[in-house]
Amino acid sequence: MTDYASAGVGLDRAAAAKSKIFAAARSTFGPRVLTDVGHFGGFFALDESPTGNVLVASTDGVGTKVLLGHRLGMIENLGRDLVHHSINDILMCGATPLFFLDYMAFGRISPDVAGTLAESFAAGCREYGVALLGGETAEMPDLYAPDHFDLAGTIIGIVQRDKMLDGKSVHEGDVLLGLASSGLHTNGYSLARRVFAEDVQSGEIKHRRLKHGQSLAEALMEPHRCYLLALQGLIGDPALHALSHITGGGIEENTHRVLPKGLSLDIDWNSWPRPELFELLQTQGCVPEDEMRRVFNLGIGAIAIVEKSEAQRIAVHMKAHGERVYTIGRVAR
Amino acid sequence: MTDYASAGVGLDRAAAAKSKIFAAARSTFGPRVLTDVGHFGGFFALDESPTGNVLVASTDGVGTKVLLGHRLGMIENLGRDLVHHSINDILMCGATPLFFLDYMAFGRISPDVAGTLAESFAAGCREYGVALLGGETAEMPDLYAPDHFDLAGTIIGIVQRDKMLDGKSVHEGDVLLGLASSGLHTNGYSLARRVFAEDVQSGEIKHRRLKHGQSLAEALMEPHRCYLLALQGLIGDPALHALSHITGGGIEENTHRVLPKGLSLDIDWNSWPRPELFELLQTQGCVPEDEMRRVFNLGIGAIAIVEKSEAQRIAVHMKAHGERVYTIGRVAR
Repeated sequence: MTDYASAGVGLDRAAAAKSKIFAAARSTFGPRVLTDVGHFGGFFALDESPTGNVLVASTDGVGTKVLLGHRLGMIENLGRDLVHHSINDILMCGATPLFFLDYMAFGRISPDVAGTLAESFAAGCREYGVALLGGETAEMPDLYAPDHFDLAGTIIGIVQRDKMLDGKSVHEGDVLLGLASSGLHTNGYSLARRVFAEDVQSGEIKHRRLKHGQSLAEALMEPHRCYLLALQGLIGDPALHALSHITGGGIEENTHRVLPKGLSLDIDWNSWPRPELFELLQTQGCVPEDEMRRVFNLGIGAIAIVEKSEAQRIAVHMKAHGERVYTIGRVAR
Repeated sequence: MTDYASAGVGLDRAAAAKSKIFAAARSTFGPRVLTDVGHFGGFFALDESPTGNVLVASTDGVGTKVLLGHRLGMIENLGRDLVHHSINDILMCGATPLFFLDYMAFGRISPDVAGTLAESFAAGCREYGVALLGGETAEMPDLYAPDHFDLAGTIIGIVQRDKMLDGKSVHEGDVLLGLASSGLHTNGYSLARRVFAEDVQSGEIKHRRLKHGQSLAEALMEPHRCYLLALQGLIGDPALHALSHITGGGIEENTHRVLPKGLSLDIDWNSWPRPELFELLQTQGCVPEDEMRRVFNLGIGAIAIVEKSEAQRIAVHMKAHGERVYTIGRVAR
């Protein structure tokens, strides 16, 4: 919950807001809430059995990727983007997704735009057997500009209590396996929009080509990669100790939050090829390396923290499901 | 899902958007989705047992009540408002609420405002034993004005399959028991803001008093009444055939959607006292009666459709929990 980094929020304000929000949330927790806030999803036990079912829930938005998509007239994947992002979030907790609900808020509802976005949400859901169970579509003319809109969504999944991934079994020496991302996913768009502002303005963004053939616009609007198929077969595998979803905050912040206290990350930042899009962002925007690492996924969309002796077996499993997988570091004390 | 009326959306556009959105959602439904879209919540079966558990989910916003609250500096109940609204929505399906997730989107996050809103969500949750399990707080400077914000939320509840309230047992002759609302709840604020625009502008809205002593501003920002305590003891009672939550669309539209095909509503519009706030809206805004009925709850926040011979017993039960209850009509063929 409550990721600010990608939106370029001042860190002091973010920390101050977070601590107030977390305190408010904690004041509502009863015995059926199984983890503290701040994980990739909230855990709610349906019963008290040690092998009983636990619901896992997460709410998210697509951030200012909506503004870029709107500006470029490329909105057809925004719903799918958010569904994939949400599936990944609860997958990091070990959960199988059940259903999704969307929130669409417009300055003025266009049936065509609402229909395109709804079909995009539905497409993302159908691909992974998730039901688009409901949602809300609001028109708020004085809050949004007439043709602007915001999107958010909530996903609910389920996991058996003894298969919950909460990071408790992570230990020193575990290996970090990084799964390649498909682009920026849904984070870092405030910065990316600043860096490429002139390309957007001139329309050049649709003509500049990256080495692999996509236009810069296409690369930026590429939807979030969903890791469900590669990872679901590993849930409950004793060698899989934790998963982290690389969203706003980058590789370190998102992976650090699944570690037990006292452990740290030893990441080899040169152990995977950094995709051209990130290099372009860095050079064109003169973005310092530490900011790059804090804002972007840099080519790694998710990380599996695994038992060292089993890392190869797990990497092979993920590769067999079409993932590019890199050993990017280890857990240190 | 997908209520437009309160936001003053053109009815043609609303209908066109709705049909596209519903078609998209339906394309994702598997056998575990138990009802069609358009009810107050979506139903998702956790297992196939006829007495098994069904999750009920609903996403909603507070509409342009956020703008009025922001303008008046009265935001401290907006989170509670949305929680109460959401509890009511799934309560109409027979569900007991389990947890809630919030979405807050700001032009620029103020830790104080975010903290006030989060505490308001938490307060609404604590009152009714609901966990505030997570949420998302986004800063999107180019989508929202710096000090503006939007709020949405998703609630998840649970009901035993044989106690689901889906309106199927409603029949001719059933009685409509109306439960008094506490004000506009969260619907009709686009119109209300237009009607009282000058009072807001001049600040007079905080000084004009209604007969019962509240200022006009206080009456408008009064939070949504939650009917959980009055109704939860009736879930599973064979005399309770359906419940409807009076939101955008008003008494008729919201109650009509829980009726089986072929049945209609016979409402006596003079059978309950219309609160002064609605009279003021109508006279000051020269709002035609049919628009009043379509946009506002007119003093009735929820309706129980009950077996005629048991109506008195049920009304007594609800009154014992502090509700004002009126017999406002019946189900006709």
